Amino acid sequence: MSLTTENIKIISFDVKDIRFPTSLEAHGSDAMHTDPDYSCAYVTIKLKTGLEGHGLTFTCGRGTEIVVAACKSLSDLIVGQVVSDIYKDFGGFWRSLTSESQLRWVGPEKGVIHLATAAIINALWDLWGKLLNKPVWQLLADLEPEQLVSTIDFRYLSNVITKEEAVELLRRGRVGKEERMNQLLALGYPAYTTQAGWLGYSDETIYDLANKYMEQGFNAFKVKVGKNLFQDIKRLELIRNTIGWDRILMVDANQIWEVQEAIDWMKQLSHFKILWIEEPTSPDDVLGHAEIAKALKPLGIGVATGEMCCNRVLFKQFLQANALEYCQIDSARIGGVNEILSVYLMCKKLGVKVCPHAGGVGLCEMVQHLQMWDYVALSGTMDGRFIEYVDQQHDQFVNPTIVENACYMAPRTPGYSTTLKPEAISAYENIP
Amino acid sequence: MSLTTENIKIISFDVKDIRFPTSLEAHGSDAMHTDPDYSCAYVTIKLKTGLEGHGLTFTCGRGTEIVVAACKSLSDLIVGQVVSDIYKDFGGFWRSLTSESQLRWVGPEKGVIHLATAAIINALWDLWGKLLNKPVWQLLADLEPEQLVSTIDFRYLSNVITKEEAVELLRRGRVGKEERMNQLLALGYPAYTTQAGWLGYSDETIYDLANKYMEQGFNAFKVKVGKNLFQDIKRLELIRNTIGWDRILMVDANQIWEVQEAIDWMKQLSHFKILWIEEPTSPDDVLGHAEIAKALKPLGIGVATGEMCCNRVLFKQFLQANALEYCQIDSARIGGVNEILSVYLMCKKLGVKVCPHAGGVGLCEMVQHLQMWDYVALSGTMDGRFIEYVDQQHDQFVNPTIVENACYMAPRTPGYSTTLKPEAISAYENIP
Repeated sequence: MSLTTENIKIISFDVKDIRFPTSLEAHGSDAMHTDPDYSCAYVTIKLKTGLEGHGLTFTCGRGTEIVVAACKSLSDLIVGQVVSDIYKDFGGFWRSLTSESQLRWVGPEKGVIHLATAAIINALWDLWGKLLNKPVWQLLADLEPEQLVSTIDFRYLSNVITKEEAVELLRRGRVGKEERMNQLLALGYPAYTTQAGWLGYSDETIYDLANKYMEQGFNAFKVKVGKNLFQDIKRLELIRNTIGWDRILMVDANQIWEVQEAIDWMKQLSHFKILWIEEPTSPDDVLGHAEIAKALKPLGIGVATGEMCCNRVLFKQFLQANALEYCQIDSARIGGVNEILSVYLMCKKLGVKVCPHAGGVGLCEMVQHLQMWDYVALSGTMDGRFIEYVDQQHDQFVNPTIVENACYMAPRTPGYSTTLKPEAISAYENIP
Repeated sequence: MSLTTENIKIISFDVKDIRFPTSLEAHGSDAMHTDPDYSCAYVTIKLKTGLEGHGLTFTCGRGTEIVVAACKSLSDLIVGQVVSDIYKDFGGFWRSLTSESQLRWVGPEKGVIHLATAAIINALWDLWGKLLNKPVWQLLADLEPEQLVSTIDFRYLSNVITKEEAVELLRRGRVGKEERMNQLLALGYPAYTTQAGWLGYSDETIYDLANKYMEQGFNAFKVKVGKNLFQDIKRLELIRNTIGWDRILMVDANQIWEVQEAIDWMKQLSHFKILWIEEPTSPDDVLGHAEIAKALKPLGIGVATGEMCCNRVLFKQFLQANALEYCQIDSARIGGVNEILSVYLMCKKLGVKVCPHAGGVGLCEMVQHLQMWDYVALSGTMDGRFIEYVDQQHDQFVNPTIVENACYMAPRTPGYSTTLKPEAISAYENIP
């Protein structure tokens, strides 16, 4: 870290409730979330020098005000801190937020308080990137293994991975790093789209959108299922007739089923050549997912989950129990970058592919950094992996995601790509 | 339900942030919560007739304001409802709260939003008891099996228990009900105390308190452990020397350990004849608890957990994985009475003992109703079961818990015993 960051204090903390009225057009509708207004709690952390870090957590409209309240409650732990002290022991600082002796009761490490933690931690990574003049994926890739590991709280993980093992994985991950970085900068990272398959869309819309995304080069499509078996079959027939049988198709039930119901329903859809079934049941049900994964494996269908997985301890168990084949980390559900790194490390150790959840507000902007770091400095491969892509709300950001030829292009600007345009804030801030 | 409740609407909803400054004397201190200020979010639901239901969720001081914000966000779903419609399909109403299409994102069914749900649902049970002129334990025991089951949302539970199986368990549970009710009214339900063993107490305080509670008839004691092995051994020696070897002793680590650490540490304490180790590691780690339970079983030590178990889906897995021997339901962590009933039913089916978590603010007042219902109308036994007892904040309630001869006496007044005295509210309300 540059010496100029020494002794610089955080002098202010601000959080805003930003809501985009997406429910008006059924964008983002699924079996559980019928009318989401894509929203976020948007945190600004300001240094004495005037430099600002921005972080956010995605929400669905109502409820954002609760996350905002939680951010405010945590802000006392942020303002007045010397920023270089945070980065010197980022793992320790992360624990001071998540284990605050009174606040932890209302989590611990889950739900509203953890969503708020994510927004704050994400802002601190954006700030760090800006201080070092690097996009976060590169900042991560350039950290020494010991430094990177020092940002992680390994509490409750030691029966699956230790700090020492993590350092070793990162050391090995560095081999060939420069070459991969060049390839990434030239070609980007593959994306798939969910855009053609929202539950609220008409057949015509689905057909048109699938064609539009094929023309843009997309070869992998995800479709929402789970409300009505007959309609699911119709929708999948339509999609397969449109995209053909060589392109990749995934389905997403958004937690609608019981365990056995998921198995039975998916058996009826298996002839559509489905790569994964996403969120077949409760996001908390590790053993249920394991049962489903076991039953669907012979049909060639993998289980994917993670966007609502509440923390690293749940992820650990999903991995231990062979309950998922595709690990869908989310950038703002668990406690920000630091905790997500621990999930990537466990996935690397146990040989599970990470395919991040994105969409919403700012999720694409953030997860691209994480997945690119993984490619450059940890797993070293894109094989069988892609990042979800939804073409919404990007124009609200100062440095939006750039997708070309169905690939996320590596961000070049410093930070975590999380800064909203001032005009987006003034147009969409929800003031009660 | 009496006809007079037909068409009566809920006309107002109020929530208050109440904090008792318990941290001043280290009451309630443990390995994770070093300075709790026992607090609650306190909900009042008022009918057009003027009748009020009161419900609360326990908190530790800071953070209560977030739960209060969540209660306010949920209040739109309460005010204006016809109260008899709620009780006619209480399970459906419960789902309408916990699955609200936008709000569920900030849970789902965990953390702040679920603590708020608990406070509201608990207030509705208090109100129901008052409407029917019955304490809640009796209300529950008098409901027909089909009626009781209709209050429960069985979503995600069907691979362990179905509605039909639950009805059958309740039918069988009714045999001998009158006799057990008479016994309960005469003798009460056994309690154990945590009062002598907080981590912040001196040896002298522990010795004096253990003697005090023995004189009151207590035969089961729980002690906090986990900060320092040497000190734990000293504390347990002191306790065993004071209470002797025929009384029951449990220890509680409040989530401080890694999985293997828990096993190793407890092996060092096993000669103290310990009934259970409570919360040995992360409350989310089902598989970790299963590993600990397996390792400690040969030493005669059971695993107990539940006070921070976030919902019925986690409880289901703890039960499926043989990860706990003592199920410590909490009255305000998962979504109130309705969801807790489903946990009791799973425990009954799988032969696991329920020993509720209590203490804090109002937890003793509430859990006594649940455990008494279980005795009268479901498990039909007190064998190996007791309710935690902590002698704090009871005098703040209009109808406090009454413990005689180390037994909770069955509440006689209508409702859920959750009404705070007006003077407690005015003295301890936290107004920002």
